[in-house]
Amino acid sequence: MRGICSDRVRPRQRILDTARNLFRKYGIKGIGVEAIAEAAETNKMTLYRHFGSKDELIAECLREAANRACDIWCDLEAQNPGDALAQVKGWVRIGAERVLSEGRGCDLANAAVELPDGDHPAKRVIQEFKVEQRNRLADLCRRAGLQNPDLVSDTLSLLLEGARVNRQSVGPDGPCAQFVAAAEAVIAASQRRPETLIADDRAR
Amino acid sequence: MRGICSDRVRPRQRILDTARNLFRKYGIKGIGVEAIAEAAETNKMTLYRHFGSKDELIAECLREAANRACDIWCDLEAQNPGDALAQVKGWVRIGAERVLSEGRGCDLANAAVELPDGDHPAKRVIQEFKVEQRNRLADLCRRAGLQNPDLVSDTLSLLLEGARVNRQSVGPDGPCAQFVAAAEAVIAASQRRPETLIADDRAR
Repeated sequence: MRGICSDRVRPRQRILDTARNLFRKYGIKGIGVEAIAEAAETNKMTLYRHFGSKDELIAECLREAANRACDIWCDLEAQNPGDALAQVKGWVRIGAERVLSEGRGCDLANAAVELPDGDHPAKRVIQEFKVEQRNRLADLCRRAGLQNPDLVSDTLSLLLEGARVNRQSVGPDGPCAQFVAAAEAVIAASQRRPETLIADDRAR
Repeated sequence: MRGICSDRVRPRQRILDTARNLFRKYGIKGIGVEAIAEAAETNKMTLYRHFGSKDELIAECLREAANRACDIWCDLEAQNPGDALAQVKGWVRIGAERVLSEGRGCDLANAAVELPDGDHPAKRVIQEFKVEQRNRLADLCRRAGLQNPDLVSDTLSLLLEGARVNRQSVGPDGPCAQFVAAAEAVIAASQRRPETLIADDRAR
């Protein structure tokens, strides 16, 4: 088994990159440290020197995945400066791209399924990541002037989580194919206030 | 480790009940056949005689889970005979009960996450189950006279899948707590046709 290896990539990063790919391919519990070390062209001793244990390697892989996923907020702001509604719609678009391109779903949500043990060091990484994502999306929905921003953002989060896990059960043509349509309907329904509708009606 | 054991329960069923509980507790890959056989107060040879392999035991556990989950459709019809809309709302209520009461989520969706290997015999069980659930909910939404019944039913499916997986990351107070409110908003929005709204406006 050969991972992402290069003489120019240092062992610690080689182990992380290789572990992430192998965890995705075989599941976190479907691959051992020996196979990871071998695929990263190093050895178990080096792996343990850098990470201490397989559990800590898993936690570190998820920290990296969380940091990468958090880049989304900077990208959304850069692409739609000051336009929170466009950023909410951009969040849906990026989510849809991930549903389509990554058949294995969200590394962090998958890890929560694979690690029911409450004491695993990865559990805190997962929880903190999901809470931060939730708060940031709720803040965006609030700034976008959507009605019931907390309900809208949680609805969008559940749709995306559902799409990413459902795709693993039934593939890309299942309910996950409706993610964008479902999310856009939720955003559209929360853009107009009932008072505005009534005011519009009276103006006719 | 002691499972669900009784002299009156036959070994095959004891193994299935024990395996289901241990898979839920430790994850499918977190427990071996030896520990399952011991907890079921039998031995590995008996387990293999009944199921052939751990993979087939997993598939059979999921078949049982799927059959139990399919009882929902009979219950909904029995509780709301001939009233498809009440049955859709009942589906949401039962889904919410499962989100609340079963912190480990859907056994079949979890198994899809834990078994990325496309050749695993459980994969077909999972796919057939999810496709059947999807078709039955879409049929119910159609009979309930909801607009865009396929979109509504897929939206509801994604919300429930999302709630069950998200609960495993952030617990019962996270976005999953909004499942009922989110699902009811989707149903309410699909009950009124735009034409009806315009007709109402003109009648004022």
